[in-house]
Amino acid sequence: MASQVNPPRGMRDFLPAEKAQRERVLSVIRSVYSTHGFDEIETPVMEESARLHSGLGGDNEKLSYGILKRGLTTDDLHAAKDALELADLGLRFDLTVPLARFYATNQAALPSVFRAIQIGSVWRAERPQKGRYRQFIQCDIDIIGEKGVLAEVELITATVATLSSLGIDGCTIRINDRRLLTSMLTVFGFPPSEHASVLITIDKLDKLGHDGVITELRDRAYPAGPIDALEAFFRRPQTMEFNPFGERAIRKALPEGADETAIAALVALAEALGDVSSLVFDPFLVRGMGYYTGTIFEVTHPSLGYSLAGGGRYDGMIGRFLGGDVPAVGFSVGFERIVDLVSLEGSATDDAVALLHDDDVPASVLVALKTGLIAQGSRVRLERKPRNLKPLFAQLAASGFQRVATVTADSTLESLEFRDLG
Amino acid sequence: MASQVNPPRGMRDFLPAEKAQRERVLSVIRSVYSTHGFDEIETPVMEESARLHSGLGGDNEKLSYGILKRGLTTDDLHAAKDALELADLGLRFDLTVPLARFYATNQAALPSVFRAIQIGSVWRAERPQKGRYRQFIQCDIDIIGEKGVLAEVELITATVATLSSLGIDGCTIRINDRRLLTSMLTVFGFPPSEHASVLITIDKLDKLGHDGVITELRDRAYPAGPIDALEAFFRRPQTMEFNPFGERAIRKALPEGADETAIAALVALAEALGDVSSLVFDPFLVRGMGYYTGTIFEVTHPSLGYSLAGGGRYDGMIGRFLGGDVPAVGFSVGFERIVDLVSLEGSATDDAVALLHDDDVPASVLVALKTGLIAQGSRVRLERKPRNLKPLFAQLAASGFQRVATVTADSTLESLEFRDLG
Repeated sequence: MASQVNPPRGMRDFLPAEKAQRERVLSVIRSVYSTHGFDEIETPVMEESARLHSGLGGDNEKLSYGILKRGLTTDDLHAAKDALELADLGLRFDLTVPLARFYATNQAALPSVFRAIQIGSVWRAERPQKGRYRQFIQCDIDIIGEKGVLAEVELITATVATLSSLGIDGCTIRINDRRLLTSMLTVFGFPPSEHASVLITIDKLDKLGHDGVITELRDRAYPAGPIDALEAFFRRPQTMEFNPFGERAIRKALPEGADETAIAALVALAEALGDVSSLVFDPFLVRGMGYYTGTIFEVTHPSLGYSLAGGGRYDGMIGRFLGGDVPAVGFSVGFERIVDLVSLEGSATDDAVALLHDDDVPASVLVALKTGLIAQGSRVRLERKPRNLKPLFAQLAASGFQRVATVTADSTLESLEFRDLG
Repeated sequence: MASQVNPPRGMRDFLPAEKAQRERVLSVIRSVYSTHGFDEIETPVMEESARLHSGLGGDNEKLSYGILKRGLTTDDLHAAKDALELADLGLRFDLTVPLARFYATNQAALPSVFRAIQIGSVWRAERPQKGRYRQFIQCDIDIIGEKGVLAEVELITATVATLSSLGIDGCTIRINDRRLLTSMLTVFGFPPSEHASVLITIDKLDKLGHDGVITELRDRAYPAGPIDALEAFFRRPQTMEFNPFGERAIRKALPEGADETAIAALVALAEALGDVSSLVFDPFLVRGMGYYTGTIFEVTHPSLGYSLAGGGRYDGMIGRFLGGDVPAVGFSVGFERIVDLVSLEGSATDDAVALLHDDDVPASVLVALKTGLIAQGSRVRLERKPRNLKPLFAQLAASGFQRVATVTADSTLESLEFRDLG
C-alpha cells in the first residue's frame, strides 16, 4: 500500500542522511560566498506571471508552473482563451528574473555595487528523466552595478574558492565573450538574423564534434559561404591551442576582425586572475541563455562530463523592470550536480549518544538523563530497545551516533556505561 | 518607477540584514533540535491536489494555492465545472499533511520511532493584513510511532530549550487534552454532534471572556441546559487556580466525570517534566485544528499577546495515507513571530573588512589583497570609493563590517592601514 504513495512526479523527498549532506554543502557555499563579501537575500518563490513570461527566461518560460487565480467562477473558465489567463502568479524557474524584480523594488536600499547570494529552489516542468528534477536548488551569486572586469574576477575567485572548500579542486574555467561569437559569425558571413539559431547548433560542439556541427548547419539549408568559412576555421591546426590564457592565445584562436573590446576585456580578466585556476579561452563556448551580453564562463572538471557552474555578463536584463541598463554579472553553481560529489563529515566535536530503554523506565528518568547529557554537550537520542539491536545500531551509526548506553529505572548520569557503535 | 515593481501581494523580499537574522535564528533552531535527537527531512513544496484537499488541513485547505495542470487545451477549460479540476498539484499550506505523505512513502527506511525536524515555507492565500503573510516559514518537530507521554515530554523539552537558546526565557506552557474537552462538554449535556461547533466558540475565551462565550452560545440557539451548566462551571471560584501543575490542580479545574485516561496522561506528563518550565493546565485550551486526538499545548510569554509555539497529539492523521493508526505528536514554533524578538549577534570571531579603491587601481591588485586577507581569516568586501563616505560606512557597519582601509595601486597586505568603522 505504501508503495502507491509518492511525492509528485519528478520531485524528491530527502531522508535524514541526504538532507544533512545537503545542508552541510549549502552551509559551506554560504560561508565562503559571505567571506568573499557577498550578502544573501531572499525573494518569494512566486512572481507575477507577466514578469515570468517577459522573454527573459528563454526556453525555461515554457516550463514554468502557473498558480491558479483565486476565486475563479465557472464563467471565468469558460471565457478563457488560454490556460495562462487563469494564472496571475507563477513559480520561479530561475533566480535571475526574481533578482531583476528584487533590484527594481529595493534599489534605493542597496549599495551601488551590490553583491548578492541567492540560494533557493526553482521549479521547471521538465520531462522527468535521470538527473533532471522538477524542483531543484540553485546557488547564484551576482554582482550588480559594476561595469569593469572586477565583477567577473570576484565571481570567479569566489566560485573557485567555494568548490575548493568542498574538496573539488583541479577545475578548468572555460571563458568566452558573447561579442566574440557575434563578431566571428559576422566575419564568416552569417547575417545577424541567423546568429541566434546558428549559435544553438554551435552550442552542441561538445556532443556533435566539428563535422557534426557543419552537417547540421548544411542540413538546415543555410547559405554555403558562411558554413564553408566556419568549416575552414575549424580545420586550422592551431584552433585547439587555447592555453595558456593570454592575449596571444586569444588572438590565435580567433579569426581576423573579432571584437576588440571583448578581446581587451578578456586580456584584463586573464591578468587580474593571474594563476587563480586553470583558465581556458574557448571561442566556441556559447552558454544557452540569450540574455548574456559579454563575458560567459563555465566550470568543468576533467573527471566529469558536465559543467559544475556557469555564468556570464547580462547588462541588459537587471534594468529591464527599471527602464534602463544596469551592469550585471552572475555565476550559478550546479548544486544538484555537486552535492553528491562532495564528502563532508559532520563536525568532529559532535558527540552523539543513544540511550536504550525498556517500557518500564519512567519518562522522568529518561528526560533527566537526556537533559544532563545535553548539558554536557552531547546530541542525545532516546530509543526503545527493540528485539533485534542490529538494524537499530546500523541506523544510529548512519545518523552519526557514536555511542550507546542502556538505561534502567535507577540509572544515573554517573552509572551509564557507554559502548561504541559499529 | 521602482515603486511600481513589488513582490506578489502578501509576500516579502528579505534584504541582507533581515535575511542574515532569519538564517541565524534558523540555525539555532536546527542545532538545538538536532541536539535533542531529531533528524531533519525535506519534502517538495507541492503535493497532489487530492491529498491537500482530503480534509486533514481544516480551514487551511480553502487557502491553498493550486498549480495549473500542464498542457490544458481551451476545450479542457470550457469543459471544467470548477477551477480546482484544473489543478493537479497544490502548494503545501502546512508541514503536517506533507509529513503524513512522507511517512507513508518512506516508512520502511525510517526508525520505528521517528523524530522529524521540518523547516520550510508554506503558502496560504490569506487576506493580506499586518503580520499575516502568504508565504511564511514553519518550524515543526514531530515524533511518530511513540504512544506514551515520552513523546510529549521530548517535544516540550526540546522546544523550551530552543526558545531559551534564542534568549526567550520565562515562557508558560499551557496544556490540555482534547479528550478532556470532549468529556467536559458531554458532562454539561452538549450532544456530540455539536462539540466541534461549541469548541470554536470556547476557543475565543481569551478574546470574549466568560460572559462573551456564554452570550455567543445563547445567540446560536443551543439548548439552555448545557449552556447553563457551562456558565455555572465558569463561575466556580476555583476555576482559575490551574497552577501548580499536578493531579490535584487538574482535578480541581475539571467537572466530575472528566476523561480519566486523559487525566492520567497529564499527571504522567507533569511528573516527567518536573520543573522544566512553567506548566499550566488550562481546561479551556482548544487549539484550532480538528485533527488533534489527545494532549494539546501552547507556549505563551507573559509580555506577548500571542502564542509562540503550539502543538498536540494527532494519532489518527499520519496513518491516513497508510490505512492505519500511527501515534504522532507535533510541535510547531511560530518562526515569523519570534524572529523579530530575538537579538543574535554575528559570530564574534568574524573579522570583516572593506577595501576602498579608486577606478585606477588594477583588478589584479585588488584581487591579490582580497585573497590574502581571506586567507588570514577575514571576510572581505571591495568598495569603489564614493564622493560621500558616510552612507557607505553606515551600510558597511549594518552589514557587520568592522574595519576599512584605502587601497592604492601599490598597496600590499603589509602597507594597508585599517581604521575602525562607526
